[in-house]
Amino acid sequence: MNHSSADPDCEPTEPLRYLSKEDAVAMETELLRDYRFGQQQLMEILGHACAVAIAKAFPLGTLNKRQPTVLVVCGPDKNGCIGLACARHLRVFEYMPTVFYPKRSAHSLHQDFTVQCERMDIPFLSYLPTEVQLINDAYNLIVDAVLGPETELGAVEEPFTSILLTLRGVKIPIASLDIPSGWDPDETSTDGLSPAVLISLMAPKRCALSFSGTHFLAGRFLPYDIQKKYDLNPPKFSGTDYIAELH
Amino acid sequence: MNHSSADPDCEPTEPLRYLSKEDAVAMETELLRDYRFGQQQLMEILGHACAVAIAKAFPLGTLNKRQPTVLVVCGPDKNGCIGLACARHLRVFEYMPTVFYPKRSAHSLHQDFTVQCERMDIPFLSYLPTEVQLINDAYNLIVDAVLGPETELGAVEEPFTSILLTLRGVKIPIASLDIPSGWDPDETSTDGLSPAVLISLMAPKRCALSFSGTHFLAGRFLPYDIQKKYDLNPPKFSGTDYIAELH
Repeated sequence: MNHSSADPDCEPTEPLRYLSKEDAVAMETELLRDYRFGQQQLMEILGHACAVAIAKAFPLGTLNKRQPTVLVVCGPDKNGCIGLACARHLRVFEYMPTVFYPKRSAHSLHQDFTVQCERMDIPFLSYLPTEVQLINDAYNLIVDAVLGPETELGAVEEPFTSILLTLRGVKIPIASLDIPSGWDPDETSTDGLSPAVLISLMAPKRCALSFSGTHFLAGRFLPYDIQKKYDLNPPKFSGTDYIAELH
Repeated sequence: MNHSSADPDCEPTEPLRYLSKEDAVAMETELLRDYRFGQQQLMEILGHACAVAIAKAFPLGTLNKRQPTVLVVCGPDKNGCIGLACARHLRVFEYMPTVFYPKRSAHSLHQDFTVQCERMDIPFLSYLPTEVQLINDAYNLIVDAVLGPETELGAVEEPFTSILLTLRGVKIPIASLDIPSGWDPDETSTDGLSPAVLISLMAPKRCALSFSGTHFLAGRFLPYDIQKKYDLNPPKFSGTDYIAELH
Protein backbone atom coordinates (compact mmCIF):
# COMPACT_ATOMS: atom_id res chain seq x y z
CA MET A 1 0.00 0.00 0.00
CA ASN A 2 1.54 3.30 -1.07
CA HIS A 3 1.16 6.66 0.56
CA SER A 4 0.77 9.21 -2.16
CA SER A 5 0.79 12.59 -0.51
CA ALA A 6 2.19 14.58 2.37
CA ASP A 7 -0.42 17.32 2.11
CA PRO A 8 -1.72 17.79 5.66
CA ASP A 9 -5.16 18.83 4.38
CA CYS A 10 -5.58 15.38 2.92
CA GLU A 11 -4.64 13.63 6.14
CA PRO A 12 -8.07 12.24 7.04
CA THR A 13 -8.32 10.51 3.68
CA GLU A 14 -4.91 8.86 3.91
CA PRO A 15 -5.30 5.10 3.76
CA LEU A 16 -4.88 2.85 6.77
CA ARG A 17 -1.31 1.66 7.03
CA TYR A 18 -0.48 -2.05 6.91
CA LEU A 19 2.75 -2.49 8.86
CA SER A 20 5.71 -4.62 7.94
CA LYS A 21 6.89 -7.00 10.63
CA GLU A 22 9.96 -4.81 11.07
CA ASP A 23 7.89 -1.67 11.67
CA ALA A 24 5.53 -3.50 14.02
CA VAL A 25 8.47 -4.63 16.15
CA ALA A 26 10.00 -1.13 16.10
CA MET A 27 6.69 0.46 17.11
CA GLU A 28 6.20 -1.86 20.05
CA THR A 29 9.78 -1.36 21.21
CA GLU A 30 9.18 2.38 21.16
CA LEU A 31 5.92 2.05 23.11
CA LEU A 32 7.66 0.07 25.81
CA ARG A 33 10.91 2.04 25.95
CA ASP A 34 9.98 5.66 25.22
CA TYR A 35 6.30 5.80 26.15
CA ARG A 36 6.86 3.53 29.15
CA PHE A 37 3.93 1.24 28.49
CA GLY A 38 4.25 -2.09 30.30
CA GLN A 39 3.97 -5.55 28.76
CA GLN A 40 1.29 -6.44 31.31
CA GLN A 41 -0.64 -3.30 30.48
CA LEU A 42 -0.46 -3.89 26.70
CA MET A 43 -1.56 -7.51 27.02
CA GLU A 44 -4.48 -6.53 29.22
CA ILE A 45 -5.60 -3.78 26.81
CA LEU A 46 -5.26 -6.01 23.76
CA GLY A 47 -6.80 -9.15 25.32
CA HIS A 48 -9.76 -7.06 26.47
CA ALA A 49 -10.21 -5.47 23.04
CA CYS A 50 -10.03 -8.89 21.34
CA ALA A 51 -12.79 -10.22 23.61
CA VAL A 52 -14.94 -7.18 22.77
CA ALA A 53 -14.36 -7.78 19.04
CA ILE A 54 -15.26 -11.46 19.37
CA ALA A 55 -18.43 -10.57 21.29
CA LYS A 56 -19.30 -8.18 18.48
CA ALA A 57 -18.64 -10.73 15.73
CA PHE A 58 -20.32 -13.62 17.59
CA PRO A 59 -22.95 -12.15 19.93
CA LEU A 60 -24.11 -14.44 22.74
CA GLY A 61 -27.65 -14.65 21.37
CA THR A 62 -26.55 -15.82 17.92
CA LEU A 63 -24.45 -18.88 18.79
CA ASN A 64 -25.49 -22.27 17.44
CA LYS A 65 -24.65 -24.47 20.39
CA ARG A 66 -26.76 -24.67 23.52
CA GLN A 67 -23.84 -23.34 25.58
CA PRO A 68 -21.73 -20.31 24.57
CA THR A 69 -18.56 -22.40 24.31
CA VAL A 70 -15.36 -21.00 22.79
CA LEU A 71 -12.07 -22.82 22.35
CA VAL A 72 -9.07 -20.52 22.83
CA VAL A 73 -5.87 -22.05 21.47
CA CYS A 74 -2.79 -20.35 22.87
CA GLY A 75 0.75 -20.56 21.58
CA PRO A 76 3.93 -20.32 23.65
CA ASP A 77 4.66 -16.62 23.15
CA LYS A 78 3.05 -13.20 23.40
CA ASN A 79 0.14 -13.99 21.09
CA GLY A 80 -0.78 -16.91 23.35
CA CYS A 81 -0.66 -14.69 26.42
CA ILE A 82 -3.01 -12.17 24.80
CA GLY A 83 -5.23 -15.17 24.10
CA LEU A 84 -5.28 -15.95 27.82
CA ALA A 85 -6.33 -12.38 28.63
CA CYS A 86 -8.96 -12.62 25.90
CA ALA A 87 -10.31 -15.88 27.36
CA ARG A 88 -10.64 -14.28 30.80
CA HIS A 89 -12.58 -11.33 29.40
CA LEU A 90 -14.82 -13.68 27.36
CA ARG A 91 -15.62 -15.45 30.64
CA VAL A 92 -16.55 -12.10 32.18
CA PHE A 93 -18.82 -11.45 29.18
CA GLU A 94 -20.57 -14.75 30.01
CA TYR A 95 -19.08 -16.92 27.28
CA MET A 96 -17.75 -20.34 28.26
CA PRO A 97 -14.15 -20.36 27.10
CA THR A 98 -11.94 -23.45 27.25
CA VAL A 99 -8.21 -22.92 26.87
CA PHE A 100 -5.76 -25.18 25.10
CA TYR A 101 -2.27 -24.03 26.02
CA PRO A 102 0.05 -26.93 25.35
CA LYS A 103 3.43 -25.24 25.83
CA ARG A 104 3.30 -22.94 28.80
CA SER A 105 5.66 -20.03 28.85
CA ALA A 106 8.21 -19.78 31.65
CA HIS A 107 7.81 -15.98 31.60
CA SER A 108 6.37 -14.91 34.97
CA LEU A 109 4.04 -12.42 33.30
CA HIS A 110 2.56 -15.17 31.14
CA GLN A 111 2.24 -17.39 34.20
CA ASP A 112 0.27 -14.66 35.95
CA PHE A 113 -2.20 -14.47 33.06
CA THR A 114 -2.48 -18.27 33.20
CA VAL A 115 -3.26 -18.30 36.93
CA GLN A 116 -5.86 -15.57 36.43
CA CYS A 117 -7.67 -17.87 33.96
CA GLU A 118 -7.35 -20.92 36.17
CA ARG A 119 -8.69 -19.01 39.17
CA MET A 120 -11.64 -17.88 37.04
CA ASP A 121 -12.44 -21.60 36.68
CA ILE A 122 -11.72 -21.61 32.96
CA PRO A 123 -11.00 -25.22 31.98
CA PHE A 124 -7.69 -26.07 30.31
CA LEU A 125 -7.59 -28.98 27.85
CA SER A 126 -4.74 -31.42 28.25
CA TYR A 127 -4.82 -32.31 24.55
CA LEU A 128 -6.56 -31.21 21.37
CA PRO A 129 -8.76 -33.87 19.75
CA THR A 130 -7.37 -34.79 16.33
CA GLU A 131 -10.88 -35.78 15.28
CA VAL A 132 -12.15 -32.40 14.12
CA GLN A 133 -15.78 -33.42 14.40
CA LEU A 134 -15.39 -33.45 18.19
CA ILE A 135 -14.22 -29.83 18.03
CA ASN A 136 -16.99 -28.82 15.61
CA ASP A 137 -19.57 -30.35 17.94
CA ALA A 138 -18.26 -28.96 21.20
CA TYR A 139 -17.52 -25.32 20.40
CA ASN A 140 -19.18 -22.41 18.65
CA LEU A 141 -15.90 -20.91 17.53
CA ILE A 142 -12.15 -21.04 17.95
CA VAL A 143 -9.91 -18.18 19.01
CA ASP A 144 -6.57 -18.58 17.27
CA ALA A 145 -3.85 -17.19 19.55
CA VAL A 146 -1.28 -19.72 18.41
CA LEU A 147 1.37 -17.91 16.36
CA GLY A 148 1.99 -14.17 16.17
CA PRO A 149 3.88 -11.93 13.75
CA GLU A 150 7.05 -12.50 15.77
CA THR A 151 7.05 -16.25 15.05
CA GLU A 152 9.63 -17.53 12.57
CA LEU A 153 7.49 -19.85 10.48
CA GLY A 154 10.45 -22.05 9.56
CA ALA A 155 11.09 -22.70 13.24
CA VAL A 156 7.58 -23.80 14.21
CA GLU A 157 7.76 -27.16 15.95
CA GLU A 158 5.43 -29.76 17.35
CA PRO A 159 2.88 -29.69 18.82
CA PHE A 160 2.06 -26.54 16.83
CA THR A 161 2.43 -27.99 13.34
CA SER A 162 -0.10 -30.70 14.23
CA ILE A 163 -2.38 -28.17 15.94
CA LEU A 164 -2.47 -25.99 12.82
CA LEU A 165 -3.20 -29.07 10.73
CA THR A 166 -6.16 -29.92 12.98
CA LEU A 167 -7.43 -26.34 13.03
CA ARG A 168 -7.28 -26.18 9.23
CA GLY A 169 -9.80 -28.99 9.19
CA VAL A 170 -12.43 -27.52 11.51
CA LYS A 171 -15.73 -26.24 10.16
CA ILE A 172 -16.61 -23.80 12.96
CA PRO A 173 -15.44 -20.21 12.51
CA ILE A 174 -12.00 -19.12 13.67
CA ALA A 175 -11.12 -15.68 15.00
CA SER A 176 -7.39 -14.97 14.74
CA LEU A 177 -5.49 -12.55 16.96
CA ASP A 178 -3.15 -10.18 15.06
CA ILE A 179 -2.37 -12.54 12.15
CA PRO A 180 -3.85 -15.88 11.13
CA SER A 181 -1.52 -18.55 12.50
CA GLY A 182 0.82 -19.87 9.85
CA TRP A 183 0.78 -16.67 7.79
CA ASP A 184 3.90 -14.67 7.13
CA PRO A 185 3.09 -11.17 8.47
CA ASP A 186 4.65 -9.53 5.42
CA GLU A 187 3.10 -11.51 2.62
CA THR A 188 -0.07 -12.75 1.01
CA SER A 189 -0.52 -16.20 2.41
CA THR A 190 -1.24 -19.41 0.63
CA ASP A 191 -0.80 -21.42 3.78
CA GLY A 192 -1.95 -21.35 7.40
CA LEU A 193 -5.43 -20.92 8.83
CA SER A 194 -8.41 -19.32 7.05
CA PRO A 195 -10.16 -17.41 9.81
CA ALA A 196 -13.60 -15.85 9.46
CA VAL A 197 -12.51 -12.96 11.70
CA LEU A 198 -9.16 -11.23 12.07
CA ILE A 199 -8.43 -8.87 14.95
CA SER A 200 -5.38 -6.78 14.10
CA LEU A 201 -3.53 -5.55 17.18
CA MET A 202 -2.38 -1.90 17.23
CA ALA A 203 -2.11 -1.82 13.41
CA PRO A 204 -2.83 -4.38 10.68
CA LYS A 205 0.15 -6.28 9.32
CA ARG A 206 0.82 -6.43 5.58
CA CYS A 207 -0.54 -9.94 5.20
CA ALA A 208 -3.98 -8.62 6.24
CA LEU A 209 -4.24 -6.91 2.82
CA SER A 210 -5.18 -10.30 1.41
CA PHE A 211 -7.67 -11.08 4.20
CA SER A 212 -11.27 -10.88 3.03
CA GLY A 213 -13.23 -11.82 6.18
CA THR A 214 -14.48 -9.62 9.01
CA HIS A 215 -11.58 -7.44 10.09
CA PHE A 216 -11.34 -5.55 13.37
CA LEU A 217 -8.66 -3.20 14.57
CA ALA A 218 -7.87 -3.16 18.31
CA GLY A 219 -5.49 -0.37 19.14
CA ARG A 220 -7.10 2.93 19.91
CA PHE A 221 -4.84 3.60 22.91
CA LEU A 222 -1.82 4.44 20.73
CA PRO A 223 -0.29 7.89 21.37
CA TYR A 224 -0.77 10.35 18.50
CA ASP A 225 2.96 10.76 17.97
CA ILE A 226 3.27 7.03 17.37
CA GLN A 227 0.31 7.11 14.98
CA LYS A 228 1.97 9.93 13.07
CA LYS A 229 5.47 8.52 13.07
CA TYR A 230 4.28 5.24 11.60
CA ASP A 231 1.64 6.85 9.33
CA LEU A 232 -0.96 4.55 10.85
CA ASN A 233 -4.00 6.62 9.78
CA PRO A 234 -6.33 4.64 12.02
CA PRO A 235 -10.05 4.69 11.29
CA LYS A 236 -12.47 6.81 13.31
CA PHE A 237 -13.40 4.98 16.49
CA SER A 238 -16.87 5.57 17.82
CA GLY A 239 -17.62 6.93 21.33
CA THR A 240 -15.57 5.04 23.89
CA ASP A 241 -15.05 1.99 21.64
CA TYR A 242 -11.61 0.44 21.68
CA ILE A 243 -12.18 -1.53 18.49
CA ALA A 244 -13.21 -0.54 14.97
CA GLU A 245 -14.55 -2.79 12.24
CA LEU A 246 -12.51 -2.27 9.08
CA HIS A 247 -14.47 -4.49 6.69
CA MET B 1 -26.17 -2.71 54.97
CA ASN B 2 -27.20 -6.09 56.34
CA HIS B 3 -27.42 -9.32 54.47
CA SER B 4 -30.52 -11.08 55.61
CA SER B 5 -30.51 -14.50 54.04
CA ALA B 6 -28.23 -17.28 52.89
CA ASP B 7 -30.87 -18.94 50.71
CA PRO B 8 -29.16 -19.56 47.37
CA ASP B 9 -32.44 -19.18 45.47
CA CYS B 10 -32.61 -15.61 46.63
CA GLU B 11 -29.09 -14.83 45.49
CA PRO B 12 -29.94 -12.55 42.54
CA THR B 13 -31.99 -10.30 44.81
CA GLU B 14 -29.29 -9.93 47.45
CA PRO B 15 -28.33 -6.30 47.83
CA LEU B 16 -25.10 -4.84 46.52
CA ARG B 17 -22.41 -4.99 49.17
CA TYR B 18 -20.75 -1.80 50.45
CA LEU B 19 -17.28 -2.80 51.63
CA SER B 20 -15.52 -1.69 54.77
CA LYS B 21 -12.04 -0.30 54.26
CA GLU B 22 -10.66 -3.43 55.87
CA ASP B 23 -12.49 -5.74 53.46
CA ALA B 24 -11.51 -3.61 50.47
CA VAL B 25 -7.85 -3.90 51.43
CA ALA B 26 -8.17 -7.66 52.04
CA MET B 27 -9.88 -8.18 48.69
CA GLU B 28 -7.21 -6.31 46.75
CA THR B 29 -4.44 -8.16 48.55
CA GLU B 30 -6.08 -11.42 47.56
CA LEU B 31 -6.45 -10.33 43.93
CA LEU B 32 -2.76 -9.51 43.75
CA ARG B 33 -1.42 -12.45 45.75
CA ASP B 34 -3.72 -15.38 44.96
CA TYR B 35 -5.23 -14.41 41.61
CA ARG B 36 -1.92 -12.97 40.42
CA PHE B 37 -3.35 -9.75 39.05
CA GLY B 38 -0.71 -7.06 38.63
CA GLN B 39 -0.83 -3.52 39.97
CA GLN B 40 -0.20 -2.19 36.48
CA GLN B 41 -3.00 -4.31 35.09
CA LEU B 42 -5.50 -3.23 37.79
CA MET B 43 -4.68 0.45 37.35
CA GLU B 44 -5.09 0.19 33.59
CA ILE B 45 -8.45 -1.61 33.90
CA LEU B 46 -9.75 0.83 36.51
CA GLY B 47 -8.43 4.00 34.85
CA HIS B 48 -10.01 2.90 31.58
CA ALA B 49 -13.35 2.10 33.24
CA CYS B 50 -13.34 5.48 35.02
CA ALA B 51 -12.83 7.28 31.70
CA VAL B 52 -15.73 5.33 30.19
CA ALA B 53 -17.95 6.28 33.15
CA ILE B 54 -16.98 9.94 32.84
CA ALA B 55 -17.71 9.89 29.10
CA LYS B 56 -21.11 8.41 29.93
CA ALA B 57 -21.89 10.99 32.62
CA PHE B 58 -20.51 13.94 30.63
CA PRO B 59 -20.82 13.10 26.91
CA LEU B 60 -18.65 15.17 24.58
CA GLY B 61 -21.64 16.78 22.89
CA THR B 62 -23.17 18.04 26.15
CA LEU B 63 -20.27 20.02 27.61
CA ASN B 64 -20.73 23.73 28.25
CA LYS B 65 -17.31 25.02 27.30
CA ARG B 66 -16.16 25.43 23.72
CA GLN B 67 -13.38 22.89 24.33
CA PRO B 68 -13.94 19.53 26.06
CA THR B 69 -11.56 20.44 28.90
CA VAL B 70 -11.30 18.30 32.04
CA LEU B 71 -9.08 18.95 35.06
CA VAL B 72 -7.76 15.72 36.58
CA VAL B 73 -6.38 16.29 40.09
CA CYS B 74 -4.12 13.44 41.18
CA GLY B 75 -2.94 12.63 44.68
CA PRO B 76 0.36 11.02 45.64
CA ASP B 77 -0.83 7.42 45.92
CA LYS B 78 -2.73 4.75 44.01
CA ASN B 79 -5.88 6.83 43.52
CA GLY B 80 -3.75 9.49 41.82
CA CYS B 81 -2.17 6.91 39.54
CA ILE B 82 -5.58 5.61 38.46
CA GLY B 83 -6.39 9.27 37.76
CA LEU B 84 -3.39 9.42 35.41
CA ALA B 85 -4.62 6.32 33.54
CA CYS B 86 -8.09 7.87 33.41
CA ALA B 87 -6.69 11.12 31.98
CA ARG B 88 -4.90 9.21 29.22
CA HIS B 89 -8.05 7.34 28.24
CA LEU B 90 -10.06 10.60 28.30
CA ARG B 91 -7.51 11.99 25.83
CA VAL B 92 -8.04 8.95 23.62
CA PHE B 93 -11.81 9.59 23.81
CA GLU B 94 -11.09 13.12 22.49
CA TYR B 95 -11.53 15.05 25.71
CA MET B 96 -8.87 17.63 26.59
CA PRO B 97 -7.60 16.62 30.02
CA THR B 98 -5.17 18.71 32.02
CA VAL B 99 -3.46 17.03 34.96
CA PHE B 100 -2.58 18.58 38.30
CA TYR B 101 -0.24 16.18 40.09
CA PRO B 102 1.59 18.21 42.70
CA LYS B 103 3.34 15.43 44.63
CA ARG B 104 4.68 12.86 42.22
CA SER B 105 5.12 9.35 43.46
CA ALA B 106 8.59 7.82 43.47
CA HIS B 107 7.04 4.43 42.61
CA SER B 108 8.33 3.39 39.16
CA LEU B 109 4.89 2.12 38.15
CA HIS B 110 3.35 5.53 38.90
CA GLN B 111 6.18 7.21 37.02
CA ASP B 112 5.40 5.05 33.97
CA PHE B 113 1.77 6.18 34.00
CA THR B 114 3.00 9.78 34.32
CA VAL B 115 5.30 9.47 31.30
CA GLN B 116 2.48 7.90 29.28
CA CYS B 117 0.39 11.03 29.91
CA GLU B 118 3.25 13.40 29.18
CA ARG B 119 4.03 11.61 25.92
CA MET B 120 0.35 11.89 24.97
CA ASP B 121 0.87 15.67 25.19
CA ILE B 122 -1.46 16.01 28.16
CA PRO B 123 -0.53 19.29 29.90
CA PHE B 124 0.45 19.23 33.58
CA LEU B 125 -0.33 22.28 35.72
CA SER B 126 2.44 23.53 37.97
CA TYR B 127 -0.04 24.97 40.45
CA LEU B 128 -3.78 25.04 41.08
CA PRO B 129 -5.35 28.52 40.93
CA THR B 130 -6.76 29.45 44.35
CA GLU B 131 -9.24 31.71 42.58
CA VAL B 132 -11.99 29.17 41.87
CA GLN B 133 -13.54 31.30 39.16
CA LEU B 134 -10.52 30.59 36.99
CA ILE B 135 -11.18 26.86 37.39
CA ASN B 136 -14.92 27.23 36.76
CA ASP B 137 -14.17 29.16 33.57
CA ALA B 138 -11.46 26.91 32.19
CA TYR B 139 -12.86 23.41 32.69
CA ASN B 140 -16.11 21.54 32.15
CA LEU B 141 -15.54 19.24 35.08
CA ILE B 142 -13.00 18.02 37.59
CA VAL B 143 -11.86 14.43 38.10
CA ASP B 144 -11.06 13.96 41.78
CA ALA B 145 -8.27 11.39 42.08
CA VAL B 146 -6.77 13.05 45.13
CA LEU B 147 -7.35 10.80 48.13
CA GLY B 148 -8.39 7.15 48.12
CA PRO B 149 -9.83 4.83 50.77
CA GLU B 150 -6.28 3.96 51.87
CA THR B 151 -5.57 7.55 52.91
CA GLU B 152 -5.46 8.25 56.66
CA LEU B 153 -7.47 11.46 56.82
CA GLY B 154 -5.68 12.66 59.95
CA ALA B 155 -2.37 12.45 58.10
CA VAL B 156 -3.33 14.52 55.06
CA GLU B 157 -0.80 17.29 54.58
CA GLU B 158 -0.24 20.28 52.37
CA PRO B 159 -0.66 20.83 49.49
CA PHE B 160 -3.66 18.50 49.69
CA THR B 161 -5.56 20.28 52.46
CA SER B 162 -5.45 23.51 50.44
CA ILE B 163 -6.37 21.65 47.25
CA LEU B 164 -9.46 20.15 48.88
CA LEU B 165 -10.41 23.60 50.19
CA THR B 166 -10.17 25.02 46.67
CA LEU B 167 -12.10 22.12 45.12
CA ARG B 168 -14.87 22.52 47.71
CA GLY B 169 -15.42 25.98 46.31
CA VAL B 170 -15.73 25.15 42.61
CA LYS B 171 -19.10 25.28 40.85
CA ILE B 172 -18.35 22.86 37.99
CA PRO B 173 -19.22 19.21 38.59
CA ILE B 174 -16.73 16.85 40.20
CA ALA B 175 -16.37 13.15 39.43
CA SER B 176 -14.64 11.28 42.26
CA LEU B 177 -12.72 8.05 41.83
CA ASP B 178 -13.55 5.36 44.42
CA ILE B 179 -14.45 7.75 47.27
CA PRO B 180 -14.93 11.50 47.38
CA SER B 181 -11.66 12.99 48.64
CA GLY B 182 -11.83 13.84 52.31
CA TRP B 183 -14.45 11.20 53.12
CA ASP B 184 -13.79 8.39 55.54
CA PRO B 185 -14.46 5.21 53.51
CA ASP B 186 -16.35 3.64 56.39
CA GLU B 187 -18.66 6.45 57.39
CA THR B 188 -21.28 8.91 56.29
CA SER B 189 -19.35 12.05 55.59
CA THR B 190 -20.01 15.56 56.72
CA ASP B 191 -16.74 16.80 55.31
CA GLY B 192 -14.75 16.54 52.09
CA LEU B 193 -15.86 17.09 48.51
CA SER B 194 -19.45 16.89 47.22
CA PRO B 195 -19.07 15.24 43.82
CA ALA B 196 -21.85 15.02 41.26
CA VAL B 197 -20.53 11.63 40.15
CA LEU B 198 -18.90 8.83 42.11
CA ILE B 199 -17.15 5.93 40.38
CA SER B 200 -16.71 3.10 42.86
CA LEU B 201 -13.76 0.85 42.03
CA MET B 202 -14.29 -2.92 42.25
CA ALA B 203 -16.98 -2.50 44.94
CA PRO B 204 -18.55 0.55 46.62
CA LYS B 205 -17.18 1.53 50.01
CA ARG B 206 -19.51 2.02 52.97
CA CYS B 207 -19.40 5.79 52.78
CA ALA B 208 -21.08 5.57 49.35
CA LEU B 209 -24.33 4.62 51.12
CA SER B 210 -24.76 8.31 51.88
CA PHE B 211 -23.90 9.43 48.34
CA SER B 212 -26.93 10.65 46.42
CA GLY B 213 -25.44 11.69 43.07
CA THR B 214 -24.81 9.62 39.92
CA HIS B 215 -23.06 6.45 41.02
CA PHE B 216 -21.12 4.08 38.74
CA LEU B 217 -19.47 0.81 39.57
CA ALA B 218 -16.27 -0.08 37.70
CA GLY B 219 -15.18 -3.61 38.46
CA ARG B 220 -16.69 -6.26 36.26
CA PHE B 221 -13.39 -8.10 35.87
CA LEU B 222 -13.53 -9.57 39.39
CA PRO B 223 -13.33 -13.39 39.55
CA TYR B 224 -16.55 -15.05 40.70
CA ASP B 225 -14.91 -16.61 43.74
CA ILE B 226 -13.92 -13.15 44.94
CA GLN B 227 -17.42 -11.84 44.31
CA LYS B 228 -18.84 -14.71 46.35
CA LYS B 229 -16.32 -14.60 49.16
CA TYR B 230 -16.98 -10.92 49.76
CA ASP B 231 -20.75 -11.17 49.04
CA LEU B 232 -20.36 -8.40 46.48
CA ASN B 233 -23.62 -9.13 44.61
CA PRO B 234 -22.66 -6.85 41.74
CA PRO B 235 -25.37 -5.53 39.44
CA LYS B 236 -26.00 -7.00 36.00
CA PHE B 237 -23.56 -5.47 33.52
CA SER B 238 -24.82 -5.04 30.00
CA GLY B 239 -23.14 -6.61 26.92
CA THR B 240 -19.41 -5.97 27.06
CA ASP B 241 -19.72 -2.96 29.39
CA TYR B 242 -17.16 -2.69 32.16
CA ILE B 243 -19.18 -0.17 34.13
CA ALA B 244 -22.72 -0.19 35.53
CA GLU B 245 -24.75 2.77 36.67
CA LEU B 246 -26.09 2.12 40.17
CA HIS B 247 -28.24 5.23 40.63
